Amino acid sequence: MNEQRTAPNEVSRIACIGAGVIGGGWVAHFLARGYRVTAWDPAADAESRLERLVDAAWPALRELGLSDEAARENLTVAPTLEQAVANAQFVQESAPEQLEVKRDLLARIDAATPAGVVISSSTSGYEMTDMQRDCADPSRLVVGHPFNPPYLIPLVEVVGGTSTAAWATRWAAEFFEITGKSVITMDREVPGFVANRLQEALWREALHMVDNGEATVEQIDTAITEGPGLRWPLFGPCMTFHLAGGEGGMAHMLDQFGPSLKSPWTRLDAPELTGELRDAMVRGCEEEAAGRSITELVGDRDRAIISVLRAVGEARKGTE
Amino acid sequence: MNEQRTAPNEVSRIACIGAGVIGGGWVAHFLARGYRVTAWDPAADAESRLERLVDAAWPALRELGLSDEAARENLTVAPTLEQAVANAQFVQESAPEQLEVKRDLLARIDAATPAGVVISSSTSGYEMTDMQRDCADPSRLVVGHPFNPPYLIPLVEVVGGTSTAAWATRWAAEFFEITGKSVITMDREVPGFVANRLQEALWREALHMVDNGEATVEQIDTAITEGPGLRWPLFGPCMTFHLAGGEGGMAHMLDQFGPSLKSPWTRLDAPELTGELRDAMVRGCEEEAAGRSITELVGDRDRAIISVLRAVGEARKGTE
Repeated sequence: MNEQRTAPNEVSRIACIGAGVIGGGWVAHFLARGYRVTAWDPAADAESRLERLVDAAWPALRELGLSDEAARENLTVAPTLEQAVANAQFVQESAPEQLEVKRDLLARIDAATPAGVVISSSTSGYEMTDMQRDCADPSRLVVGHPFNPPYLIPLVEVVGGTSTAAWATRWAAEFFEITGKSVITMDREVPGFVANRLQEALWREALHMVDNGEATVEQIDTAITEGPGLRWPLFGPCMTFHLAGGEGGMAHMLDQFGPSLKSPWTRLDAPELTGELRDAMVRGCEEEAAGRSITELVGDRDRAIISVLRAVGEARKGTE
Repeated sequence: MNEQRTAPNEVSRIACIGAGVIGGGWVAHFLARGYRVTAWDPAADAESRLERLVDAAWPALRELGLSDEAARENLTVAPTLEQAVANAQFVQESAPEQLEVKRDLLARIDAATPAGVVISSSTSGYEMTDMQRDCADPSRLVVGHPFNPPYLIPLVEVVGGTSTAAWATRWAAEFFEITGKSVITMDREVPGFVANRLQEALWREALHMVDNGEATVEQIDTAITEGPGLRWPLFGPCMTFHLAGGEGGMAHMLDQFGPSLKSPWTRLDAPELTGELRDAMVRGCEEEAAGRSITELVGDRDRAIISVLRAVGEARKGTE
């Protein structure tokens, strides 16, 4: 254990590198949770851009509840990257999504950041193994991939590269959870991680449909917002289908609808539904259900859908 | 115009064929909207199953608000299919998802249903062209594909087969909207329609990830419920990415992130991002935005996410 290392719950100073939509969103998130944030971006108007981004986010954050120490004045914009990270106890990098840019920047961040401090990248899909290559101490670099807007969407995907130390991945996951995030820690690198792979499959199918004139942009959005999109805030795709199986759950669903995996319902071929895959899906759903019967889950789902319908109805009314 | 045809807003008697999860859900929906429903299912316990299904749905429907004429007593279970449809002004078929079963049943329904009455199938993915083959009057048969549970999820996808008359598709779309549904009318048959194609792409990617040990069932569900699933009740995938492009919207998003369509972020290959496809996506988003600036859309999205987070938080609390 490194003597200089700050425990995740003792962090008070964070550096945010990059002042785009994602970087600014991280700044707003950390300010709202009471951290002191030092930011840097090479753009000349970085300070005013960050101010606009935090301005836009703050009403939502105030509405959700700020932590006692939260203050917009806790943001400092540093004149250089080196000054931004000099006293940081955690660094979040949110540079443009170009491998060379990320690689160079992370090496500079690593050179200027105190030893033992974890450096996290917001990359949407690059593997840390490729990005950490030029760092003097690659062991403390992790991916910490947020979803837009980072100040409202809880998900952060954490995964290390081949040179990342196990402690750094654990530290980052623990730290993000302390700041209020929901963390998925992956034990291997997969391009696009988990959520972007799922979202990207749906997105590519959508592009194909528009490209072929099979559906319009508006029909695609309506298909989600008025359909499965209303079920997904409470139960993800697996639990949703666990309920679609009626009282037999996922096992019945796979046994009955398994053949539809061979149907040309998307351009994406399905894996073979082996007994092992079937059992893994069933077991996973049973673990998530945690003892709740299908009837209880249906009740939970229905209550959530009603609340979501009302919430979205109110949000739409507010815009008319 | 057929003299016998009832206008969509004058329908009062509906027949529901099939008493499974979807058929029962339709029964509950139509009862809640004040219709008299005659149901039939070959199972010996059809009546008690329907009662249980309506029992389970009714609290949610009462909570959402029943129409003045709504009454559970308006449900009759008929002893034969022929008696169920004899006086119907609209028929919804929700039989098991097997092509031969659907084909035979729809021919029987068609033979027994009064002339001019529209017959709709809940099929999740079969094309009406294949299902209507044995009907004496295939012109009045349409697909009316709901989402589970049909009494809460607004989406219905309407599409006819090659022998379906244009009036029948229009009539069905108008009728479903009168009953409170959000309707997508497709002008051509595509396997899986729109929403199931999108959902199926995501689902198959999920199965691949579990199959390869890249993510667990729980991680996949968390990736959606804590991530993009919170954005999709208000804005579908296209509008979501319109906002991800910052002030440049979908145009900027496609120009900047277009290369990620070549990334191995899913097993599904993307179409080529031609200038035409790019422009179709941009134009579609601008139409949906209907004059709202990106800043206004961001405000709408944030308010909706906060409401959805709260709604789901309350729903989860209720189950603890």
